[in-house]
Amino acid sequence: MNLDNIRIVLVNTSHPGNIGGVARAMKNMGLSRLVLVQPRQFPDDQASWRAAGALDLLERAVVCGSLDEAIADCQYVVGTSARERRIPWPLLDPRRCAEEIALRSGREQVAVLFGREDRGLTNDELKRCNLHLHIPSDPAYSSLNLAMAVQIVCYELRMLLLGDTLPSAADDQWDAPFSTVENMERFYQHLEETLVGIGFLDPAAPRQLMARLRRLYGRVRLDEMELNILRGILTETQKYAPPPSGGDRGQS
Amino acid sequence: MNLDNIRIVLVNTSHPGNIGGVARAMKNMGLSRLVLVQPRQFPDDQASWRAAGALDLLERAVVCGSLDEAIADCQYVVGTSARERRIPWPLLDPRRCAEEIALRSGREQVAVLFGREDRGLTNDELKRCNLHLHIPSDPAYSSLNLAMAVQIVCYELRMLLLGDTLPSAADDQWDAPFSTVENMERFYQHLEETLVGIGFLDPAAPRQLMARLRRLYGRVRLDEMELNILRGILTETQKYAPPPSGGDRGQS
Repeated sequence: MNLDNIRIVLVNTSHPGNIGGVARAMKNMGLSRLVLVQPRQFPDDQASWRAAGALDLLERAVVCGSLDEAIADCQYVVGTSARERRIPWPLLDPRRCAEEIALRSGREQVAVLFGREDRGLTNDELKRCNLHLHIPSDPAYSSLNLAMAVQIVCYELRMLLLGDTLPSAADDQWDAPFSTVENMERFYQHLEETLVGIGFLDPAAPRQLMARLRRLYGRVRLDEMELNILRGILTETQKYAPPPSGGDRGQS
Repeated sequence: MNLDNIRIVLVNTSHPGNIGGVARAMKNMGLSRLVLVQPRQFPDDQASWRAAGALDLLERAVVCGSLDEAIADCQYVVGTSARERRIPWPLLDPRRCAEEIALRSGREQVAVLFGREDRGLTNDELKRCNLHLHIPSDPAYSSLNLAMAVQIVCYELRMLLLGDTLPSAADDQWDAPFSTVENMERFYQHLEETLVGIGFLDPAAPRQLMARLRRLYGRVRLDEMELNILRGILTETQKYAPPPSGGDRGQS
């Protein structure tokens, strides 16, 4: 997968602000090649303003007089499509499209086409594409802003690029090791003694109290630092509780 | 999963245009509950303009004087975070966050918090959250537009909602059945005869021609209608070719 081989092609964009929004969305996700086919107004202050920190993409944007010119050297062309075609074309959601694009972008030039704000790509333009991409928006209000559509596609490409490097769970980067069963059992013993000591738990009628506390701490999974904090609180608490009527104070 | 139990909470938004962009992004993905904590300017024409067809969401937006008020009745709170915290918090990418949110939204009220355009959520606000969400943007330019961030999160929720109902391949909705091996073999036979007939294929030195053609049509997978079109072309072509010097004309 090579993001540098992927170009975003905007066809006949009406609002220059959207061009800026697209540039920013692309750069946020690590894409850099923007091609504009007959934009109504470009360059433009609105485009620059919406681009924010992605001005460099606007400056390097290639402006073309025709779609042919924009995709002539591409080996794979994907077109975004809002509606069903008369002849169904290969059509995928952004996630599966990103997989297809990634597959090709290693050695080939790939173009992803986005159409006009009001009516997308024409049928003729869509017939130039190997694959159609459809963003599964709510049919009750399906018209996405142009830059939003680009954002979603670029986001999917970036998610694919990052792949397994994303934290699969926060635990990967946690700052303390999680407690072992042995330490948790010592904690539960300490907790139970303390609750008996302060008169909250009646050993003669314990009901489900310890089970509920075990479920609570088992669900959260304590790390060693948290365990030490809770053990410290228990030890302090025990100092104020009346001495146990009998037996050891445990190994805490 | 119940999108109606999920609220998007914008904290101290500066630009009313972004509020409109958020409303549109939400409605595109089927979310409807927008909560604004101390927006700088709302209602506002810019918000309405950017909301486009999502004006109803703006009209029903709840404006709160504090974050506490906005999330008081929630059982699960997710906060978007651009940077690492001193104390690491449970942190996931938008896809895995969406799974957590979906899990809870069936019976519980879930809030997803988005902070200020320039500096996000404060540490105090982030400490109110059960989970932090991080959009894995390019570190070289990581600052996403507010509405774009909301768009990505809402998109992930919608993708999860649609799940297996998305077309796994265009083949699901194809308008003609794909050809069977038997019909493909008849086609290859017809093709070979025709190529011999027009003198393009020399049976004495066939080289890899038929293998390459088999690879081509095998890669594309023909449907029955396409197969009939190609067979029709072959039959027409054979009419103009000199009659075969011997043998059958096949079973075409």
